[in-house]
Amino acid sequence: MAPSAVVRVSPNVGVIGASGYTGIELTRLLARHPTLRLAVASSERWVGEAVAARGGGASDVRYAAVDDAMARASELALVFLATPAELSHQLAPRLVAAGTRVIDLSGAFRLRDAAIYPARYGFAHAHASLLADAVYGLPERDRERIAGARLVANPGCYATAIVLALAPIVHAVAPGRRVFVSAGSGVSGAGRSATEDKSFVEVYGDARAYRVLRHQHDPEIEQATSARIAFVPHLLPIARGILATCCIERAPGVAARAIDDALATAYGREPFVELARSAEDVGLRDVVGTNRCRIGVAHGDDATTIIVAAIDNLVKGAAGQAIQNANLMLGLDETAGLADLAPHHP
Amino acid sequence: MAPSAVVRVSPNVGVIGASGYTGIELTRLLARHPTLRLAVASSERWVGEAVAARGGGASDVRYAAVDDAMARASELALVFLATPAELSHQLAPRLVAAGTRVIDLSGAFRLRDAAIYPARYGFAHAHASLLADAVYGLPERDRERIAGARLVANPGCYATAIVLALAPIVHAVAPGRRVFVSAGSGVSGAGRSATEDKSFVEVYGDARAYRVLRHQHDPEIEQATSARIAFVPHLLPIARGILATCCIERAPGVAARAIDDALATAYGREPFVELARSAEDVGLRDVVGTNRCRIGVAHGDDATTIIVAAIDNLVKGAAGQAIQNANLMLGLDETAGLADLAPHHP
Amino acid sequence: MAPSAVVRVSPNVGVIGASGYTGIELTRLLARHPTLRLAVASSERWVGEAVAARGGGASDVRYAAVDDAMARASELALVFLATPAELSHQLAPRLVAAGTRVIDLSGAFRLRDAAIYPARYGFAHAHASLLADAVYGLPERDRERIAGARLVANPGCYATAIVLALAPIVHAVAPGRRVFVSAGSGVSGAGRSATEDKSFVEVYGDARAYRVLRHQHDPEIEQATSARIAFVPHLLPIARGILATCCIERAPGVAARAIDDALATAYGREPFVELARSAEDVGLRDVVGTNRCRIGVAHGDDATTIIVAAIDNLVKGAAGQAIQNANLMLGLDETAGLADLAPHHP
Amino acid sequence: MAPSAVVRVSPNVGVIGASGYTGIELTRLLARHPTLRLAVASSERWVGEAVAARGGGASDVRYAAVDDAMARASELALVFLATPAELSHQLAPRLVAAGTRVIDLSGAFRLRDAAIYPARYGFAHAHASLLADAVYGLPERDRERIAGARLVANPGCYATAIVLALAPIVHAVAPGRRVFVSAGSGVSGAGRSATEDKSFVEVYGDARAYRVLRHQHDPEIEQATSARIAFVPHLLPIARGILATCCIERAPGVAARAIDDALATAYGREPFVELARSAEDVGLRDVVGTNRCRIGVAHGDDATTIIVAAIDNLVKGAAGQAIQNANLMLGLDETAGLADLAPHHP
Repeated sequence: MAPSAVVRVSPNVGVIGASGYTGIELTRLLARHPTLRLAVASSERWVGEAVAARGGGASDVRYAAVDDAMARASELALVFLATPAELSHQLAPRLVAAGTRVIDLSGAFRLRDAAIYPARYGFAHAHASLLADAVYGLPERDRERIAGARLVANPGCYATAIVLALAPIVHAVAPGRRVFVSAGSGVSGAGRSATEDKSFVEVYGDARAYRVLRHQHDPEIEQATSARIAFVPHLLPIARGILATCCIERAPGVAARAIDDALATAYGREPFVELARSAEDVGLRDVVGTNRCRIGVAHGDDATTIIVAAIDNLVKGAAGQAIQNANLMLGLDETAGLADLAPHHP
Repeated sequence: MAPSAVVRVSPNVGVIGASGYTGIELTRLLARHPTLRLAVASSERWVGEAVAARGGGASDVRYAAVDDAMARASELALVFLATPAELSHQLAPRLVAAGTRVIDLSGAFRLRDAAIYPARYGFAHAHASLLADAVYGLPERDRERIAGARLVANPGCYATAIVLALAPIVHAVAPGRRVFVSAGSGVSGAGRSATEDKSFVEVYGDARAYRVLRHQHDPEIEQATSARIAFVPHLLPIARGILATCCIERAPGVAARAIDDALATAYGREPFVELARSAEDVGLRDVVGTNRCRIGVAHGDDATTIIVAAIDNLVKGAAGQAIQNANLMLGLDETAGLADLAPHHP
Repeated sequence: MAPSAVVRVSPNVGVIGASGYTGIELTRLLARHPTLRLAVASSERWVGEAVAARGGGASDVRYAAVDDAMARASELALVFLATPAELSHQLAPRLVAAGTRVIDLSGAFRLRDAAIYPARYGFAHAHASLLADAVYGLPERDRERIAGARLVANPGCYATAIVLALAPIVHAVAPGRRVFVSAGSGVSGAGRSATEDKSFVEVYGDARAYRVLRHQHDPEIEQATSARIAFVPHLLPIARGILATCCIERAPGVAARAIDDALATAYGREPFVELARSAEDVGLRDVVGTNRCRIGVAHGDDATTIIVAAIDNLVKGAAGQAIQNANLMLGLDETAGLADLAPHHP
Repeated sequence: MAPSAVVRVSPNVGVIGASGYTGIELTRLLARHPTLRLAVASSERWVGEAVAARGGGASDVRYAAVDDAMARASELALVFLATPAELSHQLAPRLVAAGTRVIDLSGAFRLRDAAIYPARYGFAHAHASLLADAVYGLPERDRERIAGARLVANPGCYATAIVLALAPIVHAVAPGRRVFVSAGSGVSGAGRSATEDKSFVEVYGDARAYRVLRHQHDPEIEQATSARIAFVPHLLPIARGILATCCIERAPGVAARAIDDALATAYGREPFVELARSAEDVGLRDVVGTNRCRIGVAHGDDATTIIVAAIDNLVKGAAGQAIQNANLMLGLDETAGLADLAPHHP
């Protein structure tokens, strides 16, 4: 498929798993996309209903069952899998085999080492060659390989914020030192299933750490940054947003200024990475609703540096980044449908 | 004043600065205290109103102007200063000179090194000998000196959580390593003044770091623990509570178990420190409304250990701890008026 | 059992259904009660765990299975049923038959007309004589009959606020006119079960009406006030609290002042009803955490009057009022264990 | 200016008062508008800063002082006044005199009766003929006059929701009866000034009525509907959204079905009014972020009918509706720049 041809028509795309929070966000972003056209959407709970009624725009598409949606994949230029990792692990190979390009928003194809899957994702990985073929979809790091990929593994939400914060400066970390990362996430990051620990009364006014030093994004972050991290995620009483606070000790001889310069070099021209004046100038209200990652830095009196990054977990941390990847894969302007997203605040 | 005599009567106490969030909490805790009797309360904004109307219980006390309240200090067994640091710095010496014992809830007498005050608190310290005489009021660390003190410097809210988490295990930190501490606080910790950055619309749905590596509690924590810390506080969109997540690298040869044992030894019999089963089992909902500090631990595969501590910033982090100190100073049961505080959750 | 004798010992009481939000609140209030002693608590989910670990104070009681708890009822002066209505409907007759006095916090014994139960509560009522014998437990309206009751039907949370607001002034409503009541409630009023509509992400930032003109409290309110009401409850994105806004048209010749006077007469000496200066001076933050109902009034230029009432749904709307009723039934000071509850705000 | 000509170029527009919450929303909506071009924006606090840095899109416009912005009005096809009523009252006549069309988002030109201004808005109205000339800008009620207006008075946020709910059915209200309206609003509706009653800690977990029976929108609603209302607004602990619950008694002989039919007739083809299946099916999460008003109805057993309406106070209740009006005034598609706004939820 020649990208130059794609621009002239509206490529048809599909969303499998369109009723989770990520799937809803995807259909809404597609509804306002200037070029991409949502042609197929699957949702078991809403089969037969109009996507438009859920904010999916003026489209006349109706939710289909997964099997019916999969049967139409060959009509599509690209399919987004907004499905649990184990289901993505089943569906992606079928789509790729049928010649349909895939962006998988789960973790099923993010880790190069298949052996990690049983412990972190609860299933054995059966598609080693496709895993090797998949491209980790962080455009700011690997835009060209994404453009040519058959299967893009869209990064995890925490991983997006943390890898963007650390990748340009990880070489400056003192040898042998871990990078400590403390992050907070809104509850939408935990998905839509109704469980007591996600119920309003339990979360309201609370804040607590979870999966301390054992989150499934740990290996993804370490793979993408080559840093050794100690990661503590926290659940915050908000719906959306991730704020990641990273603490490094700089290697001897690395000046604070070198960190600032590395970030400026990496992101000075990136459309979706904003460098703030300071670590304090980075908050969820600056990014929620947008596809932006906002990054700020503070340096201590000695070799300590703090890097804070904020994203909207459902946009830059999931559906927005998937659109950004789709734009790259289909030869569109990378910012199409994303540049004019306004923050939800106030 | 012989403590043994005090138990038989109800000691009269006063609160200067009774209309800030800490002052309100103090008057409420005093209203339900079995022994202490609130006799004087000052508030410029509510002069002449009944303390009882603000939740201060069945007392018939009315708010007075500061000068009127100070003039009655000699009637009182103890005065709580819930005033800004610079005002406490003026008032505490007058009270002590008049023979009235003082618990100061500001930072005015917490730091042994007077030279730190201009940079961190914005004023030069003029009372070096009283500073030297003041006792840092963390009962779990220094209960006996508190009992005999003329002036107790009640710890800061962040410091309370972090010092309790770190003090028993700081000897186990790898030499030369900083302890990274990422903490979140409810907005009541920032006081009552109306500023745009504390307005509802600005804070709702937001989370952000502030005073990164330059919070005024930094020297207090380092003084109390002898640890070198890198501290990043965050403002969370809740009213109450502090959650502090501390990351250490253990010294060579220090087993994970040694950390657990040190905490169990330190706190096994403490009435207001709870050791949780895990780092995940520590949340604001467990402690908000109570005088408890809840602490949990997670160990990584290597030498990394995470210690999480939670408190209510207005209770164990301020007014409740002040009552605990007053109980010690006046020879009462240390838990009087505090043991039966129920969590606000649900 | 002579009330006068009861005061001298600590009556043993039990809570059946102690792990719902109301049941937890009850065990906490009992833990701080000066006289009542929690001797039995049932919870299927926490069998064998210590009640104290859930905030239930210093008690050494452990949660038992319902059957085990019921088997010990004869040891108890009183049992609180914090169970669903259908289960209360089964258990209350057994307890009363065994000579144990009962406060039922469900709706199972609130409605005098048994015929209403199938439609509103989903079961046919099989205990007509006990229903006739039950006393509606709103102390401000019927304190003497409560004191002598074998079975008290503790009012619903909405009903408590609305009946307290309307009962003293319902005679002043223009003949034939409905009283419109719009109320909002925190999510804890909907109980603890995990359902998607009570999940954090769905409720956060939302507000919506539910059971419009068909809430199960409608007949209870009409029975208790003799008013005809049009009741619209709303779910608010908070954990606790009910705010009820009632609109009446006054009958010809009834002055605004007569409404104020009727409320002052009714509640001037009530320990748990506060009359505010205005309708605007009544908010959840004034009452959440306390056993108080706060009421304020506004009058329009013509015959319109607005009465606003606020309570904590789990305290005055459930567990606190149940303690108030127990105090009356057991001859204790009606305010015992309740007077010194401080507001959760700030 | 011929509307047909306008479509071919991008009309330049200005926003005076661009740093309030409404002004920010306006600049963001303009940034994503397909045709309108923000050429001038005034803000005293941000003079010289780029509008784009506040989410105002790719524009190269910088904030100017009010006077500088006013001086450029003659270049503009239309000016939005997002200023306080008293300032709009001064500026609008100058703009109209200069031949610039105006949409005023304050209340300064909404009321036909100038005599009401001193009591409700705190100033005497000095521009009676312009007041008479101004068109009340609710497109669903008066689209054609808006298209030709020189000055449009953009409706108040509460008024938008309530007038849309009531206007089609007010003829069905029983003669002589008031319509009771209870509504809740997010705090952004109260503007941006920092006051203690809008501070996070004071609002969090609270809900309370304000300006009961004396809100400045009362006469606006009565003017637009010819209904007599009793209006009680409430402040809710959320940032955005208005939910209005209206209670009517139907006139004798008016069937419930007639209400449903009247709403369907009025709004069946409206792009921004959604009729929900029921009163319960209307929540803030359905509309916040969009320009929609969602309306649902419940009928009681007798003549009582409840109509619930929800909007985003900053969009359909302010900036979005202003864009809708501008589209009409400038001959554009009425939905331009508004149709694809996605809800903020989840």
